[in-house]
Amino acid sequence: MSRDLAQRLFHELEQLVLIDPHSHINPHAAASRTLADILGYHYYTELAHSAGLPKDRIEEPGISPKEKVGRLIEKLTEIDNTVQLSWFLDLAKSFFGFEHDELTLQNWERLYDGAEKKMAQPDWEDQVLKISKLEAVFLTNDFDDPLTGFDTKRYIPCLRTDDLVFHFDKAPTRERFAKATGVTPTNAASIRNGIGKLFTHFQSKGVRACAISLPPDFSPAPVPAGPALDAALAKVLGGQDCADSRRLVSQFVFWTLAEFCVEFKLPFDLMIGVNRKVYPSGVHQGQDLFDKRVSLIQYKDLFNAFPTVKFPISVLGQTSNQELVSYAWIFPNVITHGSWWYSNIPSYIELDTKSRLEAVPRTKQIGYYSDMYKLEFGLPKFRMYRRILAKVLAEDFVIGRGWLETRALELGKTVLRGNVEQIFGV
Amino acid sequence: MSRDLAQRLFHELEQLVLIDPHSHINPHAAASRTLADILGYHYYTELAHSAGLPKDRIEEPGISPKEKVGRLIEKLTEIDNTVQLSWFLDLAKSFFGFEHDELTLQNWERLYDGAEKKMAQPDWEDQVLKISKLEAVFLTNDFDDPLTGFDTKRYIPCLRTDDLVFHFDKAPTRERFAKATGVTPTNAASIRNGIGKLFTHFQSKGVRACAISLPPDFSPAPVPAGPALDAALAKVLGGQDCADSRRLVSQFVFWTLAEFCVEFKLPFDLMIGVNRKVYPSGVHQGQDLFDKRVSLIQYKDLFNAFPTVKFPISVLGQTSNQELVSYAWIFPNVITHGSWWYSNIPSYIELDTKSRLEAVPRTKQIGYYSDMYKLEFGLPKFRMYRRILAKVLAEDFVIGRGWLETRALELGKTVLRGNVEQIFGV
Amino acid sequence: MSRDLAQRLFHELEQLVLIDPHSHINPHAAASRTLADILGYHYYTELAHSAGLPKDRIEEPGISPKEKVGRLIEKLTEIDNTVQLSWFLDLAKSFFGFEHDELTLQNWERLYDGAEKKMAQPDWEDQVLKISKLEAVFLTNDFDDPLTGFDTKRYIPCLRTDDLVFHFDKAPTRERFAKATGVTPTNAASIRNGIGKLFTHFQSKGVRACAISLPPDFSPAPVPAGPALDAALAKVLGGQDCADSRRLVSQFVFWTLAEFCVEFKLPFDLMIGVNRKVYPSGVHQGQDLFDKRVSLIQYKDLFNAFPTVKFPISVLGQTSNQELVSYAWIFPNVITHGSWWYSNIPSYIELDTKSRLEAVPRTKQIGYYSDMYKLEFGLPKFRMYRRILAKVLAEDFVIGRGWLETRALELGKTVLRGNVEQIFGV
Repeated sequence: MSRDLAQRLFHELEQLVLIDPHSHINPHAAASRTLADILGYHYYTELAHSAGLPKDRIEEPGISPKEKVGRLIEKLTEIDNTVQLSWFLDLAKSFFGFEHDELTLQNWERLYDGAEKKMAQPDWEDQVLKISKLEAVFLTNDFDDPLTGFDTKRYIPCLRTDDLVFHFDKAPTRERFAKATGVTPTNAASIRNGIGKLFTHFQSKGVRACAISLPPDFSPAPVPAGPALDAALAKVLGGQDCADSRRLVSQFVFWTLAEFCVEFKLPFDLMIGVNRKVYPSGVHQGQDLFDKRVSLIQYKDLFNAFPTVKFPISVLGQTSNQELVSYAWIFPNVITHGSWWYSNIPSYIELDTKSRLEAVPRTKQIGYYSDMYKLEFGLPKFRMYRRILAKVLAEDFVIGRGWLETRALELGKTVLRGNVEQIFGV
Repeated sequence: MSRDLAQRLFHELEQLVLIDPHSHINPHAAASRTLADILGYHYYTELAHSAGLPKDRIEEPGISPKEKVGRLIEKLTEIDNTVQLSWFLDLAKSFFGFEHDELTLQNWERLYDGAEKKMAQPDWEDQVLKISKLEAVFLTNDFDDPLTGFDTKRYIPCLRTDDLVFHFDKAPTRERFAKATGVTPTNAASIRNGIGKLFTHFQSKGVRACAISLPPDFSPAPVPAGPALDAALAKVLGGQDCADSRRLVSQFVFWTLAEFCVEFKLPFDLMIGVNRKVYPSGVHQGQDLFDKRVSLIQYKDLFNAFPTVKFPISVLGQTSNQELVSYAWIFPNVITHGSWWYSNIPSYIELDTKSRLEAVPRTKQIGYYSDMYKLEFGLPKFRMYRRILAKVLAEDFVIGRGWLETRALELGKTVLRGNVEQIFGV
Repeated sequence: MSRDLAQRLFHELEQLVLIDPHSHINPHAAASRTLADILGYHYYTELAHSAGLPKDRIEEPGISPKEKVGRLIEKLTEIDNTVQLSWFLDLAKSFFGFEHDELTLQNWERLYDGAEKKMAQPDWEDQVLKISKLEAVFLTNDFDDPLTGFDTKRYIPCLRTDDLVFHFDKAPTRERFAKATGVTPTNAASIRNGIGKLFTHFQSKGVRACAISLPPDFSPAPVPAGPALDAALAKVLGGQDCADSRRLVSQFVFWTLAEFCVEFKLPFDLMIGVNRKVYPSGVHQGQDLFDKRVSLIQYKDLFNAFPTVKFPISVLGQTSNQELVSYAWIFPNVITHGSWWYSNIPSYIELDTKSRLEAVPRTKQIGYYSDMYKLEFGLPKFRMYRRILAKVLAEDFVIGRGWLETRALELGKTVLRGNVEQIFGV
């Protein structure tokens, strides 16, 4: 009975047209042209590499897309248990009529060729969005993205700020900044001035969020103007290697971004807990990991200082979920945001979904985002979440608390779509 | 079948009359007089505030109880998913015959008025205890509580010691201490002397536990008499602001309390992991959070030094539960104690209950306490736990291990009631 | 239906003959001679002690095995809820025809006597292995174990290195080292030289893994030859008490072991997170606990430096499981390895099994090892795991993903047996 009920709720949730509040879509090439665009997604390359496929086989320059896929296929049987491969099979069935339960050396070429034909159709991008029931997709835009040449109603700009906060010590960042803003970053005032120009530019293009990913050891803090900041900026902008100065400058830029979020009424997406390049010999985008010893207490000053800024928060470690639930339960400006990366697997999503629905106001949880690089992933990833959400609504609300199915569905819709509209003002 | 079985066990467990081993009941006003006493519980005010209700709307001086409830009601639909609101609906149905599944602007006033009438009945307190199947309730008494004017068999005194351990640097604490003990705290000897008087007083009133809540960075340690302690005490008692001295004095007082627990044969309830005033603009009692980076290894010296003291331990972070299970599995004096605050939601209670029943001796686990401020909460909170316990007994013991239902029930009763009697000597 | 399916898969998995990849079996006395060998296992003595049985009752010198068991029995009703006691009942039923559901003062003697008779049969060891469906069992051998007098195909040598890494400051360790290798450890070169001889000796006996358990605060690092290392070695080998020197020497020896693992093509089992002697008054082997504040980021340099060494990793804290899953998902040389000690209880095994099957390549997970001291434990411990694995395969793969039962079984077999063969080259 519980399974039938969950199935029923799942089918209802499947009807819902969504807005995806976080992705890495390139709006100029949103859909894939071959399966290499899909299987080249770091989830597959890193898992194939983890299973033993050498990096230089995967990333060999000059190989054709089909050759690349062929090489990956050889290793995919060793990751056929993973949820990531199940996404691929789901999208292969949904978009390309793949009829097998396993991807093999025998059947992949036919799939590849068929997919290539479909992807060549001029309206492929529209087809994908329609089949996936996606109305709009948030982007991850570099601070110097001109944001031109695409429909910003469909692909919603989002100002990604990792480079500003953590890479001002690198000359190319400063050059990009100067070029994008017309302001050469020489001191606190010019940096603030330039950042203001970036916000103005993004606002003119309909930006709906500022976003950043943060390492486990980062703690936001206000940095007062004065000699300490000036000295740190002098070192960092001068390219001197000084960890303390870099930290101070990062805090200064981060805090400045939050101040502009107040002024521009933008939510500030925080993705907390990633260590970059832990495995530098890994494949592209398959090098980052984390240290679970991080706490949201590190963000206490930030949450207190900016009561009018909404902070949709993603945590990389599943062991951080209870803190996130508790901080969202107490702080009006803390919002739970999806399931990020290493936490984005069903067993963790289920536990996190249950606890969030039990203790966070319904208006303060954003159920899911795709984090996708290519549009075709939206369907299987959101479907996975819709299925888990349906199960939790069935077991914990309809059966556990005696709710009517319609009421449970309403809660599901709020979490899946309504809150995205409300929180980001879409 | 599993659900029927769980239901059957739940109904059996519902018959059990309990002793609540931890609450914040005021024995002079144990039951509520209006729904404002109930909805004014910090869980509702903080969740309503988190959902957007301004603090000054909630805590405006001079508003009537009914006005206060009316203001909260407006926001309750936004927290209707929470387990906390489900407690309220459960008690509204059980005590006041509320017949709706949702609390709305249309139906709350009738409920309010009806509840007010019922609560005005002279035996309301008795009715609540009887309907809730509660025989006795542990209190949380300030160290200077005279403990007079109530039935200490029904409302069992418990010496709460946060002020002694963490607030001797504040003049009012020292004044209260001097007044309660007749001893002015001037040095280690006088503090020890005064604390001894507090224990004697509490013992004469039937105290059954000493209790304290502790921040994540606290590590108990013995503090030898000598110049270091004297100097620290001089600073703290003299009102000087010195973090190191405060820490040393806290450790000294804490260790002294443990020594008196030996002498007076009292269990020492430790509630580990809370950071106070993380969100200072939050509503009353809705300002505290935590840092999950705490370990029971910090309590190693304490557990080793006091083998005859029972330590019922609550952890604020769910990620601390495995440590608690493991420490209770090894240390004879470590006892698992309920589900505290941010861990007190069904998905975490269920996982914690399973792991405790799997690996901690049955005699060393106290299933649940209410933590309630008003008597009416006992019923829905214990009911939530009874339901989860029944589910775990059904799935893991009757089905999973082939136990007879009677045997599983016996285990449930030990955890729900028997151990409270044994451990606290009630 | 889900339960029937899980039951069916369980019975299939029960047919599988296994190789146990980690145990503490003494190959010269692998099976038990009396129930005291079984109930003397630290799990029972420590739980009975935790429930209140004094250490000196349990470890009194000179008591007979039967007397010891009799004393433990008195306390076992207080731990009858634990999964550990359920292992004992399972083995008592499977090996000795015990017919009761509970072990009592009335029925234990008959069981004891019957078991003693069975255990006296000359082929008892063979019987146990056959009934348990165990083909071979990995050992935990001291570095100076001669490895003679037993069948190393059945009992597979494994070089345990805790003493080398953490106890070179103790004279007996150095004496054992000198005796085993013919090399007196006087400096870096002689230590390296001696360790090489140990590897050569173990290799001649068919060693299949190097292994070590590590405290939460250990971080492997390369230690360059030079005055710093020489000075530290001088202190440690000279018996001076210097924590920094000890740490450096530990890092040097550990790194050297990893280098020999490259040369000898041996997997290096890491068991991460144990603090020794946290409860020094505890029973034998019941004194160790942990600090959950440990991260695999501490092992980043190691994993990067030794890409050709396979690291099967066990974590003591369940809260470390997600890191383990994530590191195994990214690093080709990181392998998930069983459920260790305080994590080896069903509720944690289930969650960990689900997450590993969802996100780690199927070829990089070793489902379970027994960690047993006596052969009789293999059956109930592996049975517990087979049952959990069957449940996860049924729910998440056959029902959840629509897999054929045969395919799910194949995955189960890979995790239970195939990977042990592949990873350790058995």
